[in-house]
Amino acid sequence: MKAVLKLDEIKRLVDIPQLIHEIEIGFVLYSDGRVNVPPVGFLHFDDPPGDVHIKYGSVVGDERYVLKMASAFYKNPDVGKPVSDGLMLVFSQRTGALELILLDECWLTDMRTAAAGAVAAKHLAARVTHTIGIVGTGVQARLQLEFLRNIVECKRCLVWGRNAIKVQGMIEELRRRESIRDWGLEIQAATNLDTLVSQCNLIVTTTSSDTPLIRADQVRKGTHITAMGADDHGKQELDARLLAMADLVVADSISQCIDHGECSVAVRDGLIRESSILELGNVIKNPGMGRTREDQITIADLTGVAIQDIQIAKMVEHALRANDDH
Amino acid sequence: MKAVLKLDEIKRLVDIPQLIHEIEIGFVLYSDGRVNVPPVGFLHFDDPPGDVHIKYGSVVGDERYVLKMASAFYKNPDVGKPVSDGLMLVFSQRTGALELILLDECWLTDMRTAAAGAVAAKHLAARVTHTIGIVGTGVQARLQLEFLRNIVECKRCLVWGRNAIKVQGMIEELRRRESIRDWGLEIQAATNLDTLVSQCNLIVTTTSSDTPLIRADQVRKGTHITAMGADDHGKQELDARLLAMADLVVADSISQCIDHGECSVAVRDGLIRESSILELGNVIKNPGMGRTREDQITIADLTGVAIQDIQIAKMVEHALRANDDH
Repeated sequence: MKAVLKLDEIKRLVDIPQLIHEIEIGFVLYSDGRVNVPPVGFLHFDDPPGDVHIKYGSVVGDERYVLKMASAFYKNPDVGKPVSDGLMLVFSQRTGALELILLDECWLTDMRTAAAGAVAAKHLAARVTHTIGIVGTGVQARLQLEFLRNIVECKRCLVWGRNAIKVQGMIEELRRRESIRDWGLEIQAATNLDTLVSQCNLIVTTTSSDTPLIRADQVRKGTHITAMGADDHGKQELDARLLAMADLVVADSISQCIDHGECSVAVRDGLIRESSILELGNVIKNPGMGRTREDQITIADLTGVAIQDIQIAKMVEHALRANDDH
Repeated sequence: MKAVLKLDEIKRLVDIPQLIHEIEIGFVLYSDGRVNVPPVGFLHFDDPPGDVHIKYGSVVGDERYVLKMASAFYKNPDVGKPVSDGLMLVFSQRTGALELILLDECWLTDMRTAAAGAVAAKHLAARVTHTIGIVGTGVQARLQLEFLRNIVECKRCLVWGRNAIKVQGMIEELRRRESIRDWGLEIQAATNLDTLVSQCNLIVTTTSSDTPLIRADQVRKGTHITAMGADDHGKQELDARLLAMADLVVADSISQCIDHGECSVAVRDGLIRESSILELGNVIKNPGMGRTREDQITIADLTGVAIQDIQIAKMVEHALRANDDH
C-alpha cells in the first residue's frame, strides 16, 4: 500500500480546471457504457440519524478501481463536528492491491459534485450568462459558484435561501474570497425566489428540499437550470411540469435520475417520457444534442455517479505521482 | 481517524479462543435479527480475472459499523503475489467517523471463517471426536484444523485433497507447527476420500469445488460435516442427497445458504424444505435444537456473513485500545 493522504495533502493535489476536464471525460466514458458501476450501497442509522452511501466501480480496462464511502450524520453539529465525512480507496485492477487511501472527509465528493455542475453549465447554458442564480446556502451553493468562474463570464449573481441570515452570511463569506473578487462578480441576496428565477439565466439549485421550489411558470426563455439537490428518493427541487416545459432535460445518469432524481416524478406522472431524457456524456460528445438556440430552456438533473469518484480519485493519484517524480 | 494497522500489528491483537467466542455471539445477534447486513456488493474483472466482495453492516444500537473488502485476483501468483487481499474499515455509528483501518490482507477474513468452523463443530459435532477429516489443502484447510484444537480433544486427523503432493506438503507443514505438536495430533494422508469419510466423525470441507465431493452413502452415523467452500453461485462440495439424509442441516445464514450455499441445490431440487434448515445462531442459543443423539448426522453450511467481519474488526479495536491503556 503506497500512501494514506489526509485532507490538507489532498487539497494541494486538486486543480479545478483539470478536475472539470476529468469529470467531463468521465461522463463520456459512462454514457459510452465503458464504466462498471454496481448499484449504490446504503446503510441507514436511526439513533442518532445517519446515512452512509457506498459507491464503487471502475472504467473497463483501466488501471484502477475505486470505492468511496460518504456519510451524513445529521446531529454531528451538536457535538461540534461536520455532518459529512468520508474517504476514498484506490485499488489496482491488475492485482486488487490497495494503492491509496484518501481521507478526504467528503471534500472530494463535494469537489466532484461541483465539477459536474460546471460541466453541465459548459454544455447547456446560454452563450451569454448575464446573471447567475444560486438557490441554497450550503457547501455546494458556494462551491458551484466557485466552479462556474472557470466556465462563464458573468458580473452578477443572486442568492436565495429559506434562511435570510444564512444567505447574508454566505454572501459576506463569498465576497471575502480572493477567487470571487478576482472574478469581479457582484453578489446580492434575492428578495425572493421569484425574483431570482426571473432575473437569472443560469440557475443552480443545491438544496435538500423535498418539495418543488421552482415552478414552471417562473422560468423565462433562455434559462438553464442545474438541479443537484435530489440525490435520494423523496427529494425534489423543481416542479415536474418544468421538466415537461423544458426544451432539453439532461441527466448525469438516466437510470439514476429516473429512479431518484428530478426526472423520477416527471416520468412517474407521465409528464415526460424516459426516452426524451438525454444523458450528459452524450451531450458532451455530440454538441448538436445540447442547446441549439439562445431561447431554449434546459435542465440538468445531477444525482452523482460513481464515475465522478473514480475520476477525481485517479486524478489525485496522478498528481501525487507527478509530485513524487519531481 | 485513530489508527492504520498493518498485518503484523493486527496478528498480535487476535486471540483465537476469544475470537471463537465473539463469532459465536455474532451468530446469535444475527439470528436474533439484531444485525443490519445489506446485500453483498460485487465487482468482477475479466483481464486479469479478479473478484471483489464488499461486505458491510452493523449490530443495531452498537458503537461501530464495519466495511470489509476482500479480493481474489487469480493470476497474482504469476507476479509473486498472493491471490487474496483485503482490508476492513471501522466507523463510529454515532458520527460516521472513520476510527480504524485494518490492512489485514484478507487474514482477518480467513480467521473469522475458521472461527465459524470451530463454532459449528462446538455446537454440532458428536461428544467424542475420534478422527478429524480435512478435505482440501489451502489456507482454510490448515486454519480449520488449528481452530478445532480449541474445541475438540482428538488424537487423529486424516487429510485428503485432489493433489497428493499438496496433501503431503500440508501435512509436513502442520506437523512442524508448535500448536499441532502440543495438541498431540497424529496427521495422515487419506488414500482416498471414501477412506476419509468412513473413518472420520468430524469432517471439514474447504475446497472451491463446483461438483459434489462427498456422497450420501459414504457418510456414517454420528458424523458432523462442516462445508465451508461454497460461498458463491456454482460451488458445491456435498451431494444434495446428503443434506436430505442428515438429521440436522444448519446454515450460518438461511437466506445466503439457500441462495448460494450447499442448501441451494437441495432446496431447488426439492430434497429439503427451507423450513427444515436451522440457523446457527438459533442452535447456539437453544442447545436443544442441535445434536441430541450421538448417532445423528449433522451438516453445517457456512457461506460467511458480514457479522463475522463486524465481530472480528471490533475485537481487534478493543484489543488495540486495551494495549494502549497499558
